[in-house]
Amino acid sequence: MDDFESQDPIEELITNYNELNSSVIEELSEEPSPLEFMRFVARNTPFVVRGAAADWRATRTWNVDYLKDFLGDEPVNVAVTPAGNADAPTPFTSPDGSTTLVFAKPHEEDQPFSAFLDYLIAQEHSRAHSPSPCSSPSPTPALTSKSAESQEEIRYAQTQNDNLRHEYRPLFTHVPPSIPFARIALAREPEAINLWIGNSRSVTALHKDNYENIYVQIAGQKHFVLLPPVCHACVGERGLKPAHYQRKRGRGSPQGGAGLELVVEEGEEEVPFAVWDPDRPGENATRYSALAQPMRVTLNPGDMLYLPCMWYHKVSQSCSPEGVCIAVNYWYDMDFTGPLYPLSTFVRSVSNRRNMVLQGLSL
Amino acid sequence: MDDFESQDPIEELITNYNELNSSVIEELSEEPSPLEFMRFVARNTPFVVRGAAADWRATRTWNVDYLKDFLGDEPVNVAVTPAGNADAPTPFTSPDGSTTLVFAKPHEEDQPFSAFLDYLIAQEHSRAHSPSPCSSPSPTPALTSKSAESQEEIRYAQTQNDNLRHEYRPLFTHVPPSIPFARIALAREPEAINLWIGNSRSVTALHKDNYENIYVQIAGQKHFVLLPPVCHACVGERGLKPAHYQRKRGRGSPQGGAGLELVVEEGEEEVPFAVWDPDRPGENATRYSALAQPMRVTLNPGDMLYLPCMWYHKVSQSCSPEGVCIAVNYWYDMDFTGPLYPLSTFVRSVSNRRNMVLQGLSL
Repeated sequence: MDDFESQDPIEELITNYNELNSSVIEELSEEPSPLEFMRFVARNTPFVVRGAAADWRATRTWNVDYLKDFLGDEPVNVAVTPAGNADAPTPFTSPDGSTTLVFAKPHEEDQPFSAFLDYLIAQEHSRAHSPSPCSSPSPTPALTSKSAESQEEIRYAQTQNDNLRHEYRPLFTHVPPSIPFARIALAREPEAINLWIGNSRSVTALHKDNYENIYVQIAGQKHFVLLPPVCHACVGERGLKPAHYQRKRGRGSPQGGAGLELVVEEGEEEVPFAVWDPDRPGENATRYSALAQPMRVTLNPGDMLYLPCMWYHKVSQSCSPEGVCIAVNYWYDMDFTGPLYPLSTFVRSVSNRRNMVLQGLSL
Repeated sequence: MDDFESQDPIEELITNYNELNSSVIEELSEEPSPLEFMRFVARNTPFVVRGAAADWRATRTWNVDYLKDFLGDEPVNVAVTPAGNADAPTPFTSPDGSTTLVFAKPHEEDQPFSAFLDYLIAQEHSRAHSPSPCSSPSPTPALTSKSAESQEEIRYAQTQNDNLRHEYRPLFTHVPPSIPFARIALAREPEAINLWIGNSRSVTALHKDNYENIYVQIAGQKHFVLLPPVCHACVGERGLKPAHYQRKRGRGSPQGGAGLELVVEEGEEEVPFAVWDPDRPGENATRYSALAQPMRVTLNPGDMLYLPCMWYHKVSQSCSPEGVCIAVNYWYDMDFTGPLYPLSTFVRSVSNRRNMVLQGLSL
């Protein structure tokens, strides 16, 4: 155990996985049967079904005016950040001048739905004149002092609390109440159905969830970068101090920009989080990051992605011609029995210990 | 990585697995559907279906006279050992008096089928008068000098080379050509269908196979002790020198007994093999062996076991009133894609390194 040099088991794990599995996602032309789906679940392997949701009422009808008709000025929860970095590792400069990564949670507030949409669209369209066109993948927000000092804030409706069956209930009948192949195969109803509305300024940082996830694009595009659970050593998980954005009460606060300041929650427990970004592979890399072979897939309206439990995913987005990006996802509880969950925890434990040793830190 | 003491990831792995999974096998009253079966495959979790094969022609009709009618004096491959220890870790005493464990392969020879059966039965019935009755689980053969010096040899038809579709072809139509739920779920035909004929003197040592296994009892009983792949650190895998039994040419050879001598294959590559026996937990144990919670199941005639790929299994047997034990198993190629195979290899690498460190051996 002292010597991982001669034949490093972590390197062997990732290499073996890469040799046996494609990094190109499987594309299906129609939804799988429950049995076919269960084979993907058993292999913990993603697939995309092009056009599976093309006929959904949501896909056919949702546009800005239509959605405003249903929700009007109803208050909806909005995540507000200076750089589209809700729940993301973010540099924080202390009063003493030192900079560390913290886990930045968004400022959350209720906004009237129509005004929220108008803001997204106006921002998106103003951005269409910039060198990064609306239809191309959004780059990772550069969390530099420049963007942090921007006076524009980024808004994203991204509560992952079953919001389509609660906050956005008037829209719920526009999508199926469950995904039949998943409901039958997994023998359960969805634990949560979430609606996501944002623009190309928001990016969801690389993370993983303990859910089987069926992700459906309604308007605009989502750009996924995926890594399997065996790649834990690549993502550089670290304990980050939790922090949150809040609206500034005064003027001239040095952190956050956009009228927002980042407040570190001193004394709170650290949040273990991936700090490596596959789109900036040279930053925050571990010895193993270069072994990762990220799987990339872009969802167009009507496309359906199976994102298996515990896969790391980073998600950026492009907008519809109207200037919004809308998606719905179904979370099904994963099965914690069997070997996969304890084995993933094991990989995480060994990988984190190994990365600490490589950094010369004590355990 | 240097310090597994504070919270040992291997211990955490086995403990997590034990907390999330029962060590009591799931019993089904009828065969699963392909989808239900696929859920077990996804969980890499065994089950038994009581009586699933009760109506098979094999189960209804196979007895000693009936089998002799079909095969008569046809030659069949028989594994011959002094103690029922085919393919088992076995103590070997060198000329210099030192004893090491070697991997003992049986002597193999063709015998007329009827004579082979008669030998099994006569041996079994002579044994029925001993304190260990025919119907109770066979203990692990004690590989002591006493048993090794016995003049009786143990015979077992146990070729795992698809023998029911070849050597025993006249009997093949007495069983289904595949197991429908497995064929449909796994979308493949069996890679091998094997017939096993022996008596209570043979024991199959703890090992694992890279196959999905459907094991069906026809006559007598099989007693399985099962361990999941996460328990690799418990089984004490070691590199053993390969060895094989051969019939003595002269007299007075000190090794093997029963007219057999054990020949170590010097210069051949070592065979990595489990040396811990869950039925003798104090011998050859690792620091982790005591954490194992073996799953035990006895198959009666007509019972069907799903033994998932990569599960360790030790198998002993009891005889029908006629004095034989007969089983059939279907091997389906496992799926090497997905994370389970590379993760199991990873557990093996880390566990073997850790056990070597604990023994003070260099890597």
